[in-house]
Amino acid sequence: MSTLTETPLESDQLIDGALLKVYRDTVQLPDKSTGVREWIDHPGASAVVPLFDDGSVLLIEQFRYPPRRTFLEVPAGKIDQPDEDPAAVAARELEEETGWRAGAFTKLSSLYPCIGYSNEIIHFFLARNLTKGTQDLSEGEHVTVVRMPFREAVQRAQRGEVKDMKSAMALTLAQQFLHAGA
Amino acid sequence: MSTLTETPLESDQLIDGALLKVYRDTVQLPDKSTGVREWIDHPGASAVVPLFDDGSVLLIEQFRYPPRRTFLEVPAGKIDQPDEDPAAVAARELEEETGWRAGAFTKLSSLYPCIGYSNEIIHFFLARNLTKGTQDLSEGEHVTVVRMPFREAVQRAQRGEVKDMKSAMALTLAQQFLHAGA
Repeated sequence: MSTLTETPLESDQLIDGALLKVYRDTVQLPDKSTGVREWIDHPGASAVVPLFDDGSVLLIEQFRYPPRRTFLEVPAGKIDQPDEDPAAVAARELEEETGWRAGAFTKLSSLYPCIGYSNEIIHFFLARNLTKGTQDLSEGEHVTVVRMPFREAVQRAQRGEVKDMKSAMALTLAQQFLHAGA
Repeated sequence: MSTLTETPLESDQLIDGALLKVYRDTVQLPDKSTGVREWIDHPGASAVVPLFDDGSVLLIEQFRYPPRRTFLEVPAGKIDQPDEDPAAVAARELEEETGWRAGAFTKLSSLYPCIGYSNEIIHFFLARNLTKGTQDLSEGEHVTVVRMPFREAVQRAQRGEVKDMKSAMALTLAQQFLHAGA
């Protein structure tokens, strides 16, 4: 597979934004010609499926500006520091967004959502042993917490009604994990 | 859900790149305060699961510069013109990337891979009745075509070995569709 590798020759940062770090690199392609690659440098993120003992799951509704619509999502957030443990990020975002803490996190998978233009990786966790904590939304963050049967959430994902891909994936991964363990 | 809506007040294009169109907007938040949103304007894409009658599937291996690694992927590509039919894009990308044509496309779902910073939507299709066409890669595009049992591809996705989220999702959607129809 190494014959497909592209090697960076030069890298220019085009934007150092509050959210987006955008680069334009010149690269050497496998056939030794050169090409241009525009890409986003992303710190990575964690997404979590918080499952209660009664079989219900915590989700959030949130307006997302880029697609200009509200989504039903699993709690998730970005890694803040380069050496931050993804499970710790999952725990923090879960409590900040929903006001619930989890006693146990199980890693499900790590996947890249946008390989064409971003190096983002999302770490997926199943969270259990939930207890009440304190919701603490970031400035400018507005969410509605929704609790529903996990089975219903999975069905919604399978019917294509969970339009956020990381959330549909998270529910699928959790369902596969629980089914495999059952 | 409309109480979560963010309303644009001002929009500045920061980059009009070959690939990336980046904007920084000022928005009115639900609590009437203002915030800044940096986002990517994306034309959307189609991704396709090409399934042979013998139960094998066509995938591609491709180096992706932003995450700097090679991925096992389903064939996929961007919508070129605003009014282009996603099924036509799926057909074009399938033949260009793999050299195979499909006689039948079934829409599986449409999902947003990166709602935090992009309006990209990916349209998923199952492609069947495959016949030999002509591979025609874009300039700077290098891919290796891989044919394997569909069952094996789904198992790889379930084991977390298909690290590209759209491809893991595409295989999952196809598997759910075929299972539901069986």
